[in-house]
Amino acid sequence: MRRWSGDYEREAVMRGAVIHGPGDVRIEERPEPGIVEAGDAVIRVVATCVCGSDLWSYRGIDQVRRPRPMGHEYVGVVEEVGKQVASVRPGQFVVGSFFASDNTCPVCRAGYQSACQNRVHMGECQAERIRVPMADGTLVATPEQPAAELVPSLLAVSDVMGTGWYAAVAAEVRPGATVAVVGDGAVGLCGVLAARELGAERIIAMSRHEPRQRLAREFGATDVVAERGDEGVARVKELTGGVGADCVLECVGTDESMRQALRSTRPGGNIGFVGLPHKVDIPGKELFASLIALRGGPAPVRRFLPDLITRVFDGRIDPGRVFDMTLPLAEVAEAYRAMDERRAVKVLLQP
Amino acid sequence: MRRWSGDYEREAVMRGAVIHGPGDVRIEERPEPGIVEAGDAVIRVVATCVCGSDLWSYRGIDQVRRPRPMGHEYVGVVEEVGKQVASVRPGQFVVGSFFASDNTCPVCRAGYQSACQNRVHMGECQAERIRVPMADGTLVATPEQPAAELVPSLLAVSDVMGTGWYAAVAAEVRPGATVAVVGDGAVGLCGVLAARELGAERIIAMSRHEPRQRLAREFGATDVVAERGDEGVARVKELTGGVGADCVLECVGTDESMRQALRSTRPGGNIGFVGLPHKVDIPGKELFASLIALRGGPAPVRRFLPDLITRVFDGRIDPGRVFDMTLPLAEVAEAYRAMDERRAVKVLLQP
Repeated sequence: MRRWSGDYEREAVMRGAVIHGPGDVRIEERPEPGIVEAGDAVIRVVATCVCGSDLWSYRGIDQVRRPRPMGHEYVGVVEEVGKQVASVRPGQFVVGSFFASDNTCPVCRAGYQSACQNRVHMGECQAERIRVPMADGTLVATPEQPAAELVPSLLAVSDVMGTGWYAAVAAEVRPGATVAVVGDGAVGLCGVLAARELGAERIIAMSRHEPRQRLAREFGATDVVAERGDEGVARVKELTGGVGADCVLECVGTDESMRQALRSTRPGGNIGFVGLPHKVDIPGKELFASLIALRGGPAPVRRFLPDLITRVFDGRIDPGRVFDMTLPLAEVAEAYRAMDERRAVKVLLQP
Repeated sequence: MRRWSGDYEREAVMRGAVIHGPGDVRIEERPEPGIVEAGDAVIRVVATCVCGSDLWSYRGIDQVRRPRPMGHEYVGVVEEVGKQVASVRPGQFVVGSFFASDNTCPVCRAGYQSACQNRVHMGECQAERIRVPMADGTLVATPEQPAAELVPSLLAVSDVMGTGWYAAVAAEVRPGATVAVVGDGAVGLCGVLAARELGAERIIAMSRHEPRQRLAREFGATDVVAERGDEGVARVKELTGGVGADCVLECVGTDESMRQALRSTRPGGNIGFVGLPHKVDIPGKELFASLIALRGGPAPVRRFLPDLITRVFDGRIDPGRVFDMTLPLAEVAEAYRAMDERRAVKVLLQP
């Protein structure tokens, strides 16, 4: 640990977000992170943000038993590395994701770093500095220091864009495919963008909110369906000659959205589901009869980082547009409130 | 309809199997089938058989409300075709499958003929003759009249081998993959054979029955696991360095077998499930956390027929070995009894 020297030695501190209970997120002083293991890096956070999944605790749906730090999305500049770290060095701008991974175990090698045998959840990222374990397996350095206007897109890559991309890959979106996207949150919007990049010919965004519909269209949606449930399914069927979409991205995570996805997919199509399921059971007989393939889970963002960073630097994708509010980290409480009250899709925080 | 002429005109008849209730399958006279639609073919059945799924009715698990014909597996010789039929002609030996399909609708073109928009279930095939609708989309002629010893393998292709093949394709078996097969019935055994043909490096057959274990090894299994449930999962994990199999073929269709499959697959692996699920619900949260892809359903056998027929003629596969009893069609009652009592894995019937 780096320490300040003074009249008496005291632990160095920095500021970070801490949740105390439903509706109660505060900015507080916390111990300055330092190198613990030889594979660690410490990074100065340049941008972080609030995730839809953070709201589960904020709304009291997931219990908060004791105060704990928040945040799992981050980009920043490396300040210090452990002596085994070889792939990143101090001064580099890096992107990581919500799981630290070794990137060498059999599961990582198969491309599923979010299920790495040694994974560590990154749960303290709404802060000025963070420690990243297994830095070689987790972080990817950008080719150069990014211009300020690229930072939001790189931050999006660390979670929502990586997740939308995984949804599209899991749904096996290919050139010429017809794609439907259930959910118009930041992940759903990024799913639209991913489907476009992967060559989908037709992209049906399911959205009831005018500003989100507009962004969906700018990200590549060819059709927008405002209806939900049975009516939504009927509209998708209508738009696809009665057949259903080849690929459906389920970006919500409720029982209703999963059923809507299942019934919007053509027989033998593919669903990628990335909304964390809350009380979702998939009816085996219906899935069987549909011949649909289903793959979901926490996105192995690490697999996609090099490609997505390149796409951002090349100006081919601009997922940072999902951030419709930017606040200093000190105003984290307002960031949660704005998302909770749906005044913002996603809030970027600047430490 | 072709009719016999006599003193009085009477409807032509043939013999076929009819179920009257649990444990009661009889051979009876039934109307001779004829061309009804211009796309039909009538075939003389050379071989048919009893399916594991036929036992659901035989055992009274699926209700039998009134007497009905049985059987959905067949190979035979074309006797007559409707005037629109272009791809098969009288005299040809043909293989079909349990769904007649047009093979032209969008679902068929995507390779899912078992969900054809115009599909017709073939449910009267334990008989001397059958009518096959949409013959052009359903039947595939063999390159020449098959030698007698190839007939069982061609019959297997029409259902169990086509289904085992689909299980392996749905589980995305690729060269070098580690595969586990849950279920040692005819379909599971054919799944082992399919995995070998698709280049799997390691194939773990889960089987407790010595004769089935032997056939599994002859079909390409490199390991046999006799344990079930938690112990079976633990053995598969042990054999795969603690990771789980890349691909799992679920060929049973119970809640227990599905859970066993889920827990035997490595994170991010693939399950192909072809056992008709009876009261199976897939826990969404567990599936999510596993990152496993799941695809199942009634096999689109038609997609695989040309390839599988070629493999049989080339002597590369011999799935007919799953038939361990052959009886004349007249003894269909004994065929059901033998399978019900597990005296036979699968019984071939000769009309």
